This record gives sequence, structure tokens and C-alpha cells, in this order.
Amino acid sequence: MSNFTVTPKTKVKISSKRAHYEKSIIYQVLDEARICHIGFVYEGYPVVIPTIFGRKGDTLYIHGAMGSRMLKTLEEGADLSLNVTHLDGLVLARSAFHHSMNYRSVVVFGKAEKVGSDEEKLIGMKVITDQVLKGRWEEVRQPNEKELKITKILKIKLEEVSAKMRTGKPIDEPEDYELDVWAGELPLVLTPQKPVTDPDSKKDLPVSESVSRLF
Amino acid sequence: MSNFTVTPKTKVKISSKRAHYEKSIIYQVLDEARICHIGFVYEGYPVVIPTIFGRKGDTLYIHGAMGSRMLKTLEEGADLSLNVTHLDGLVLARSAFHHSMNYRSVVVFGKAEKVGSDEEKLIGMKVITDQVLKGRWEEVRQPNEKELKITKILKIKLEEVSAKMRTGKPIDEPEDYELDVWAGELPLVLTPQKPVTDPDSKKDLPVSESVSRLF
Repeated sequence: MSNFTVTPKTKVKISSKRAHYEKSIIYQVLDEARICHIGFVYEGYPVVIPTIFGRKGDTLYIHGAMGSRMLKTLEEGADLSLNVTHLDGLVLARSAFHHSMNYRSVVVFGKAEKVGSDEEKLIGMKVITDQVLKGRWEEVRQPNEKELKITKILKIKLEEVSAKMRTGKPIDEPEDYELDVWAGELPLVLTPQKPVTDPDSKKDLPVSESVSRLF
Repeated sequence: MSNFTVTPKTKVKISSKRAHYEKSIIYQVLDEARICHIGFVYEGYPVVIPTIFGRKGDTLYIHGAMGSRMLKTLEEGADLSLNVTHLDGLVLARSAFHHSMNYRSVVVFGKAEKVGSDEEKLIGMKVITDQVLKGRWEEVRQPNEKELKITKILKIKLEEVSAKMRTGKPIDEPEDYELDVWAGELPLVLTPQKPVTDPDSKKDLPVSESVSRLF
């Protein structure tokens, strides 16, 4: 698979050995995420909003209500920066200075465009739903005309994109390896817990396949 | 404990029932986080960067290398927006439309200021280290003069701040409760895994107390 082109905006300057531009790596980091953070400028000041999204090829879809300030601003052509970060672990060194994090992060620069046709809106909704929980779209009642009408879908083309990641052990000053301080990595994983059935359920149904296969 | 004053920037407009301005709630959401996302404008376009931070009272500390583009931009007085989000669960409705997330999120608007004195720099470093892992600061070699010199610490005053959160079950259209679709919540927790001792350790030391007490 190919790479995204490095641009002045996406060229990683600090710890550039940790930078990646391969599409395969960037897709994987994006696809594992359930939320992203989008930054944009609103009335002259920066705003950062967490939101769910989905990826299909080199397109990201986001959605929201018609009144959403973020979607209004973005569909008018505002520049955006989108970040996805997985915190994979704490890197615990012998010195405070060399503490770090293991992470995988993707930064996207670009603009969003409003999706006009109901056909593509449905594609966007499916992509978002399945990114949050793979297979969920097919299990549930799909959007009706009214719901389609009041949902705004925007798409973002992946063009200026980079990934940055750190893995592995801490790196201490040579003399600090003699200290009586335990050092290592504490991995962190976002773990699904036991599903909680909606107490208002009228029917006694088994937990959906999309959920049960996670356990 | 008191509230943060609601301002035009921090007034939550959509789903405003989910908004909170109590300091106690905002502190709790911030203190549970190990990373935040900071948005700022750089050469005219928005940038979002994930970074670690720490809170002490109504001050957040962030840090980085002297060459950090984000820290340079912020210390020159750029406006910033900071977001912390905990994804607490997937809200799985009977209709695609009513799918949602349970989350706790804090948004901060403001500016950062460079910390000048070594004394306050050390406070900032301690606060950041202990936010990442409570008690770690006391266990490790603390920064020496050279390390202090090459670390930049910025502080952000908590003034314009809001929290937004969703908890609980899905809310479906009345007629959808009759559908044969399981609905409920899938809680998600960022869970520490078994610590991995640095393979380069010269000494056979027990796992640090700051880590072992998490299990």
C-alpha cells in the first residue's frame, strides 16, 4: 500500500523517527478509534471538540445535529485539524525526566464537505455506526426519512495525514540504570466490560452478536 | 465547592442538560485523565495536539521540549482550547439514529503562560508526573539542573471551563421498543495490564508501589 505525501504541515519535526506516513499504519490507527478530536477556528478562537467518526477508504465521515456549531463552521469551508490518539501505556523510567507514554496518534489537516445525497448520507451513517461497533448497522433499525433529514453528514478527504507512535521500554541516562528504581511499561487497554441490558427492554433478547463477539 | 462562571464561550448549547460547571465535577474529570488535546492556531490554521498534563488547584501544567512548536506558539499568547474526554461506554439503541456514547468531557478556553522560576517548574513537573501515575514522583530520580533547563513548563489558569457528560441507557423511539433488537450499554474502561519490567534493568527490583497498588 502507498504512503501519504509529506507536506510542510504533516512533517513531524520532534522525534521524527516516530513519524509514519504509510497508509496501512494510518488506517489501522484510525480504524481502532471510536472518537477523534477536531480543532477549528470559530469567531477567531480555536475550539477542540471530541466526536465519533468512521473511515471508508481515504474518506472520514462525521455527523451531528443540524444546529451543531462545529458542523456549520466546517461546512462553510473552515480549515480543520483532526487527531486520533490511542494511549497504549505509561513508560516508567528511573528518572522523572525520562518518563513517557507509548501511544499511536494520527493527525489530519484538511477541510470538510457536506454530504448532499441521501444515498451517501446513508453510507456515512453506516460507516460511523460500524466504526463504533463493527456489525451493529445490520442489527438495528436503519434511519427513516425524517431521521435522515435531520442528520448532517460531513466528509473529510485524507490527504495531509501523518502518524506518530512510540512503543517499548524507557530510555534512561546510562548512570541511572544503577538506581534502586523499578522501571518498565504499564500497558493500558480500553476494555469492554459486561454489557448492561436497557432496563426498559420489553423483550428478553440475547445480547447482540456485535457485542457478544467482543468477549 | 463553587462553580465556574458560564461565559458565551463555555455555554453549552446542544443537549444543555448534560452541561456542568461545578468545580468538583470538572476537577474529577480532569484528574482522571492522563492526556488532553490542545487546539491552537499556527500560521493561520488550527492544530490539535495530544499531550500530558497535571492539575493543581485551578492551574493546569503542560510541558515539553524547548523546540516544541505548540509551547512556542502558546507562550507567545495564542488562544487555546483544551479538551479532556473519557469514553465511558457505547450506548446501543434499537435504531441506528439513537446510538450514542456515554462520556465525560471538559473543555477549557484560555491562554498559557511560561513558568519562569525553577521552583515552580519543579512543582509543574511533580504535578504532571503524579497525574500520569500517582506517587511516581517520590519514587524516581528528580530532575537535575540540566534537565530543568531544557524542559519548558507552561501553565493554564482554569477560568472559562465547562463539562459535558452522558450516562445511562439508550433512549429509543416509543415504537422501537417492540423491535427484536437487543439494546443497552457497553461500558469501556481504560484498564492497566500486567506491568512489563524494562529488559535492560541491571537490578532485580519489585514493581514500584505506584504501579502495584493499581492491581
